[in-house]
Amino acid sequence: MIEGKAAPAEAGMADFSARLQRYRDLIAPYLRDVAPDREPKRHLYGLIEDHLSRSGKGLRPALAIATCRAFGGRDEDVLSVAAALEMLHNAFLIHDDIEDGSELRRDRPAMYVEQGVPLAVNVGDAMQALSIRLARRSAERIGPAGAWRMLDEFDHMLMESLEGQAIEIGWVRDNHCPVTEDDYLLMTLKKTCWYSFIHPCRIGALVARPDDPDLDRFNRFGYFLGLAFQLQDDILNLVGEAKKYGKEIGGDLWEGKRTLILADVFSKADKLETGRLRTILAKTRAQRVAREIEWMYVLIRKYGSIDHASGIAEQFAEAAAREVDSAFAGAPEGENRAFVRDLISYAVKRPR
Amino acid sequence: MIEGKAAPAEAGMADFSARLQRYRDLIAPYLRDVAPDREPKRHLYGLIEDHLSRSGKGLRPALAIATCRAFGGRDEDVLSVAAALEMLHNAFLIHDDIEDGSELRRDRPAMYVEQGVPLAVNVGDAMQALSIRLARRSAERIGPAGAWRMLDEFDHMLMESLEGQAIEIGWVRDNHCPVTEDDYLLMTLKKTCWYSFIHPCRIGALVARPDDPDLDRFNRFGYFLGLAFQLQDDILNLVGEAKKYGKEIGGDLWEGKRTLILADVFSKADKLETGRLRTILAKTRAQRVAREIEWMYVLIRKYGSIDHASGIAEQFAEAAAREVDSAFAGAPEGENRAFVRDLISYAVKRPR
Repeated sequence: MIEGKAAPAEAGMADFSARLQRYRDLIAPYLRDVAPDREPKRHLYGLIEDHLSRSGKGLRPALAIATCRAFGGRDEDVLSVAAALEMLHNAFLIHDDIEDGSELRRDRPAMYVEQGVPLAVNVGDAMQALSIRLARRSAERIGPAGAWRMLDEFDHMLMESLEGQAIEIGWVRDNHCPVTEDDYLLMTLKKTCWYSFIHPCRIGALVARPDDPDLDRFNRFGYFLGLAFQLQDDILNLVGEAKKYGKEIGGDLWEGKRTLILADVFSKADKLETGRLRTILAKTRAQRVAREIEWMYVLIRKYGSIDHASGIAEQFAEAAAREVDSAFAGAPEGENRAFVRDLISYAVKRPR
Repeated sequence: MIEGKAAPAEAGMADFSARLQRYRDLIAPYLRDVAPDREPKRHLYGLIEDHLSRSGKGLRPALAIATCRAFGGRDEDVLSVAAALEMLHNAFLIHDDIEDGSELRRDRPAMYVEQGVPLAVNVGDAMQALSIRLARRSAERIGPAGAWRMLDEFDHMLMESLEGQAIEIGWVRDNHCPVTEDDYLLMTLKKTCWYSFIHPCRIGALVARPDDPDLDRFNRFGYFLGLAFQLQDDILNLVGEAKKYGKEIGGDLWEGKRTLILADVFSKADKLETGRLRTILAKTRAQRVAREIEWMYVLIRKYGSIDHASGIAEQFAEAAAREVDSAFAGAPEGENRAFVRDLISYAVKRPR
């Protein structure tokens, strides 16, 4: 349990979702206006608009806006870069789905499934470029020194995320076995935590205080929160309902993803089992059959690896809860700090 | 013939290649140093290094450096952004090869063929991000106003190129027939001219004179030069030797690329022929057979479409030669202006 907080009931979850929705509404015009109203629509700008309209949670912009407000920053300065975070997230998703061979995204076929790989690669490239355009619109409002720092944040965020992605898809391609929990934690720090949690806080604070001397104070908080979030994501992938989750259930197993759950199985399974695991993981996604995925499920249940991952997610959420006050030291209490705190519970309790 | 210039003889071509080599040598350390010396190497940084080591012509950085020098700028200010242009070009190539299904790149299998699509998509993303990192290192040397203008140049360059790419791959995917010469010229302006010729000039001039009030003076020159260059590229794809050209001969036909050569065939062919063309182009690359590609070759020869394209390339080279003096007005004569002028001949006379 998060210190001092009861698990949010259904009502709490609905309230949190409503708060997320309000943040999403704030950035919607920025996302809409950054792409020019011109051709090519069917093969580029229309596809960007369409992907953005697949309603995601909008956690990253919400965290940036809440952090900026908490430190006294202004909405008009932060909203564009908050939209940039959502744009970049969508760019990553479009390419990730190609890289992972994922078939569903937010309850619909992934973009490359609907439009083909060539257009999807190109759309992702354009969204990466447009995310920088959006970030620069916030950057130029906060003075040259702050502007340059914001571009540093984007540079770091991009490269960490792409390094994490390289590690993950490298493991799958080369059938790296076994992956340890430490391997998983480092990969997740890179792939997920920086761009989803650490940098949204850092960027929000930077907008509020362009000469903030210590953005690193958010790193531990965002790392712990990001791990809790990603672990819950991995769990939902195995136990969720496709309709709520919006992605294919069991997709990670089909894709051969090296999750902490799989690391746990590897550490507990006997020699025969790890041998068979390796053999199944050596296949391409297309070569795997349902019976093999089923067997992996059975093994995961046998070793209690979902409960194991769930316990670790809870521990990281508690660690994040312990860090949040020092990360947000100096920011007055109020709805923004409350939002950030509630986000910790949401990370591990959310149904999708 | 280019006004006042004889066609470069073999010796002239060798001399021009040697000059290109000298520019390439200048940016090599910048390309090498921008990627950190750390993991993941095998799945990211090593692949970037490897792709950059496939020796390209290096036209874009050479043009930026020559333009900067011509206007009195300093090498130490321009070399990093010149390297950025080469980095971005390589990022585009890696993704283009996926998008077009091209199999060869600079005498070797394309990166996605060697490493798989997932890693190649991710490497291209990282190189796009690193190109901005390189550009910013030049940008911060020329003062805040100039720095911001340079980022504007990159923003425009990225989006124009990605729009052009969207148009081209959209045509292939949807079997858009016939494409007219005007369609082709607009697509090529976007896909090739901006990032390969117009922006290298604009950026070189901007580094030399961060308050230059009229970068648009390069646009017509770069547009004409870029068209001459791309037309020659399309011609070499049909008549070149694979070893010299470094790409698959006839690859454009296999890929269903809408070139000006194809536009010309469509405008001259009879109803039966255009019908068969449509049918062949409607297939995927994998469905086409050698006999069909052969038939397209025969049709191209029948209508003299290569000579037609060659004549137009020559006209655009002449137009570029007429523009070069006004584009470079104010820059003293010397080896840099001579390089830019010789680049025009090179664009249409080069063997690869």
